[in-house]
Amino acid sequence: MINRRIVLASRPQAAPTPAHFRIEDENLRSIGDGEVLLRIIYLSLDPYMRGRMSAARSYAKPVEVNEVMEGGTVAEVLQSRNPLYAPGEIVLSHSGWQSYAISNGKGLRKLDPAAAPITTALGVLGMPGFTAYVGLRHIGQPKPGEVLVVAAASGPVGASVGQIAQIQGARVVGVAGGEEKCAYVRNELGFDAALDHRAPDFAEQLAKACPDGIDVYFENVGGAVWDAVFPLLNDFARVPVCGLIAQYNAPAGAGAGIDRLPGLMRQILTRRLTMRGFIQREFVSDFPQFQHDMSGWIADGKVRYREDVVEGLNNAPEAFIGLLQGRNFGKLLIKVVQ
Amino acid sequence: MINRRIVLASRPQAAPTPAHFRIEDENLRSIGDGEVLLRIIYLSLDPYMRGRMSAARSYAKPVEVNEVMEGGTVAEVLQSRNPLYAPGEIVLSHSGWQSYAISNGKGLRKLDPAAAPITTALGVLGMPGFTAYVGLRHIGQPKPGEVLVVAAASGPVGASVGQIAQIQGARVVGVAGGEEKCAYVRNELGFDAALDHRAPDFAEQLAKACPDGIDVYFENVGGAVWDAVFPLLNDFARVPVCGLIAQYNAPAGAGAGIDRLPGLMRQILTRRLTMRGFIQREFVSDFPQFQHDMSGWIADGKVRYREDVVEGLNNAPEAFIGLLQGRNFGKLLIKVVQ
Repeated sequence: MINRRIVLASRPQAAPTPAHFRIEDENLRSIGDGEVLLRIIYLSLDPYMRGRMSAARSYAKPVEVNEVMEGGTVAEVLQSRNPLYAPGEIVLSHSGWQSYAISNGKGLRKLDPAAAPITTALGVLGMPGFTAYVGLRHIGQPKPGEVLVVAAASGPVGASVGQIAQIQGARVVGVAGGEEKCAYVRNELGFDAALDHRAPDFAEQLAKACPDGIDVYFENVGGAVWDAVFPLLNDFARVPVCGLIAQYNAPAGAGAGIDRLPGLMRQILTRRLTMRGFIQREFVSDFPQFQHDMSGWIADGKVRYREDVVEGLNNAPEAFIGLLQGRNFGKLLIKVVQ
Repeated sequence: MINRRIVLASRPQAAPTPAHFRIEDENLRSIGDGEVLLRIIYLSLDPYMRGRMSAARSYAKPVEVNEVMEGGTVAEVLQSRNPLYAPGEIVLSHSGWQSYAISNGKGLRKLDPAAAPITTALGVLGMPGFTAYVGLRHIGQPKPGEVLVVAAASGPVGASVGQIAQIQGARVVGVAGGEEKCAYVRNELGFDAALDHRAPDFAEQLAKACPDGIDVYFENVGGAVWDAVFPLLNDFARVPVCGLIAQYNAPAGAGAGIDRLPGLMRQILTRRLTMRGFIQREFVSDFPQFQHDMSGWIADGKVRYREDVVEGLNNAPEAFIGLLQGRNFGKLLIKVVQ
């Protein structure tokens, strides 16, 4: 059996290009005792993968050059020599950018296709939704009447953040790129307001949309949105930091100009801000509660989600490059067609 | 009766000079019903006062030009028409840079000179000690075996931070200016290590003193110490921010050069740091417990403190200017001689 896989060909110094990836075909060995053969159905593409392409120290080990790109996947068990898994079962796995994978069963989670579309295990009911849930629960903690701002608001983290915060009684302002996404955030997700960060007067628009300041800024992008948010933060505002997509592609040594660090430190002190970086898996014990709550909100129509499905594993590099530029619209998934 | 007072003459744009203060004598009116006349014995000089000299938004209103400089004081009740206070009693008040004050009794706290030297109400048993206590209790939360770093380690906040953290089982590295202060921090306060931030190889010394990284950095200075600490912070490190004395005198618009903000944001994310600005009075309900604990530690010899007493109200401006340059050695107090 032939496995198609996409490996890291070289490490990008700035924005990745197709040349940083390489598509390979390999012969797959037979499975051994205790192993299962997985057919990947969906591959999740997420901004954190940019960090894995870099050798810089981060919270996880980088992908090595010539190794398969890392990623969450939904797969079907094709063959099994593991008593816990039967052919035909659908599982969540972390099999990476490839069409098949052999697993010893560790880290797999069975999915019930009758309970929810299997794609949601990679989005609203998976890592991105859980990131939103625990970031709000443990750090953001919006109170009724408070104002929350979140960027990438049509994406899987931002959309979940805003909708959960509204359930918790906050007034929510979303930021997205372009009027089409903003209309979706306003009309489909029902945020109190949505602003286009590409507007030349974005900072003024944000100030106008938040006349009483900002109590929670859920930071998943960094860059110009942060610059506009920062002066509007209220006393005791909370800033959960789960991503910085706007600066992932910045070349090392970038950032000459004004040093904004002293201004941030002063704001942290005088506004008594809390900034806290986090990764959802710190809070893994919350996962059952999250699944219960989020499934209920989806069933009640209180949380909506949107998926952006690209067909064909070969298209993953280009789709991922587009993700870093905000070209996707909703949770980006590759439908792996064998 | 003549009251001597020191008013803000003008707002400094960078480091304050004597010309930013003005010494005035005024006739004091008689006290009315419910009021007390206070004779100021000690005036506390603290870095936060630099913020009050500036019109920039902060957590407290600025001192107005031509108004008396703000400050904590220990005073004797000279006359009283308030049934709660009798002449001869010693009180903590917030009477500012002057020799006498009239109070309606609100905000005064009686001190027992038999229980502790009255100066300690402005230092180790007062605002600076309480800042250390609540910053550790609510934000820093050092665990046994963790490494804590604190700057201005011979000052009233830093000295208390380090000693309390050692009581809680942390390994403590203090940073101070000059070998005399470092020797005091090592030998008198008993910190595990003390480093001179003026040493040309300070950053290397700090890295060597913290081979397992830093779990808590109690930020009360900012500037070059922060730059050396920042790369050494461990995963899940906590950074209580209570002061930034190194940048208080920076002129507005300073800081051209490398923009250090993206690097900080990345570190917050990948190290999952917590940074939290705070002012001790947020945690005022902890004050009785603080007084109980701190008095016990002082009695047991576990917490030591040092005071730097300057005689004469007229010397307050120069002493304060020196404080911002690190010229004091221990808690800086003015003994107000009427």
